[in-house]
Amino acid sequence: MDKKEHIIRQIAKTNKKNYENYVVTRIINLINDPDLKFITQQPVILSKGKRALTDLYFPQIDFHIEIDEAHHKNQKDADIEREADIINATNHIIKRIDVDCDINSINLHVDNLVSEIKKAVEAKRRNNEFVPWDIEAEYKSETYIERGYIDLDDKVAFKRIVDACNCFGLDFKGYQRAAANHPIEKDVCLWFPKLYENNDWDNKIADDGKIIIEKKKDGNKEFVEKYLFDSSKYPRKRIVFARVKDSLGDIMYRFKGFFEVNEDLSIRDHAVVYERTATRVKTYSSEGARINSK
Amino acid sequence: MDKKEHIIRQIAKTNKKNYENYVVTRIINLINDPDLKFITQQPVILSKGKRALTDLYFPQIDFHIEIDEAHHKNQKDADIEREADIINATNHIIKRIDVDCDINSINLHVDNLVSEIKKAVEAKRRNNEFVPWDIEAEYKSETYIERGYIDLDDKVAFKRIVDACNCFGLDFKGYQRAAANHPIEKDVCLWFPKLYENNDWDNKIADDGKIIIEKKKDGNKEFVEKYLFDSSKYPRKRIVFARVKDSLGDIMYRFKGFFEVNEDLSIRDHAVVYERTATRVKTYSSEGARINSK
Repeated sequence: MDKKEHIIRQIAKTNKKNYENYVVTRIINLINDPDLKFITQQPVILSKGKRALTDLYFPQIDFHIEIDEAHHKNQKDADIEREADIINATNHIIKRIDVDCDINSINLHVDNLVSEIKKAVEAKRRNNEFVPWDIEAEYKSETYIERGYIDLDDKVAFKRIVDACNCFGLDFKGYQRAAANHPIEKDVCLWFPKLYENNDWDNKIADDGKIIIEKKKDGNKEFVEKYLFDSSKYPRKRIVFARVKDSLGDIMYRFKGFFEVNEDLSIRDHAVVYERTATRVKTYSSEGARINSK
Repeated sequence: MDKKEHIIRQIAKTNKKNYENYVVTRIINLINDPDLKFITQQPVILSKGKRALTDLYFPQIDFHIEIDEAHHKNQKDADIEREADIINATNHIIKRIDVDCDINSINLHVDNLVSEIKKAVEAKRRNNEFVPWDIEAEYKSETYIERGYIDLDDKVAFKRIVDACNCFGLDFKGYQRAAANHPIEKDVCLWFPKLYENNDWDNKIADDGKIIIEKKKDGNKEFVEKYLFDSSKYPRKRIVFARVKDSLGDIMYRFKGFFEVNEDLSIRDHAVVYERTATRVKTYSSEGARINSK
């Protein structure tokens, strides 16, 4: 997928809602910045755990826009798919735009939002915190190997498990399993879980992303016991990429951080409970891994 | 309908075609001129009588844009409704934009089109030929009474027959019939025909708009004879507003000019044949009509 396809498909999602389509395209066109990524209809967790879709989201600056139509005002509590790539927007900027006014007022409001967004981008650029949108680079292992780390703030997601694996010194051609051993940090594994209820598991991630609960649907008691007392089989430190459906319906593996099992919580909750202990993990080239393992 | 509704509904027509939606909204947003009217999917007659829909049309400057998608290139011969408000675009500017290229190329092409359009508007403004889009005024009799005339170049269409009638000194509250006597120019009538085949008539207007052919489906011979030899019943001079479906599917009465019966052609073609003899007609206030008739 190139930028053109991303842009066209994101805008296409707004098609059925005329005001949304008008406002979204107007904002995008007036910002006119090919380095700024946008997502339409982004599933978010708001404060107090409320789930919603924001109409337009700029991930690089944590900025959202909600479009208020009179007859939609009370329908915003979206029915969000359990696999959705839902992000926590508690500390994000969320601006609303009212479209129940004349076209000049809408356009004026859009102009104001556009200049706010441009200012936010400018501020990040000034602090060297702005990573220009590069749709090819963002899905490639090399990008993160060169950078030396993957950080939660960078909102990293891969299209394939193998691309995540190869950020840590592996040199796979393909990989389909839900876990892989870290080739350098020997007590760590790379984990690609479904963090929602599925056939075999009743997993969960907390709204703030700091706790993961792993529960087996069948034989959970044995699983938890084995896990807690046989750490050789189940690595307790995990770099987590959650399997999610992204904004266009494609499967992605979203970096969620570095987690470690918390034994007390696990025993208390009759589940394997992981705590996030770091938001940044080191990356390695496969060459580095070979040298390291000699 | 206000400008907001017009804009939203026109853009909504492009919704199902993603590239069309992107290009149209980008052009409109970058032109950013509330005085410039636009129509999407305008039915046109091209040179050699070919019928088509142009994707974006600016009536004030006779400027059209066609968006070429690879898989649409050969599907442009549109199936146009017979009632459609089809305009002759032979002398109009028609620009194409190719979307089978990357997003930067599309955006660059849009930028070029936008500056061409702005130049065309600017040129008209300089010559005092630009009438700013005023969506309320354009459908009101008063606008044309004040102007003193209705001209083909101004692309006048009314939503109701009564609004057309009242441009010529009548003071109707409502009017539903297909013809009305001109209260001042006594040998002229105002005519609101369907210029396409319908239940009773097989009428036609030439592609260049200069000839109207009126033919009765049942008893045409008697009709034509009576018409040609009993002019008291059928006025031979007619100010014509054709009944059409406009770009949003609403019925409109589109000014087509001043027509007079051509007897020779009528006899030759076994139909009542009208020739356009003027493209501009004088308008009158109802007060003027009262004074005049004293």
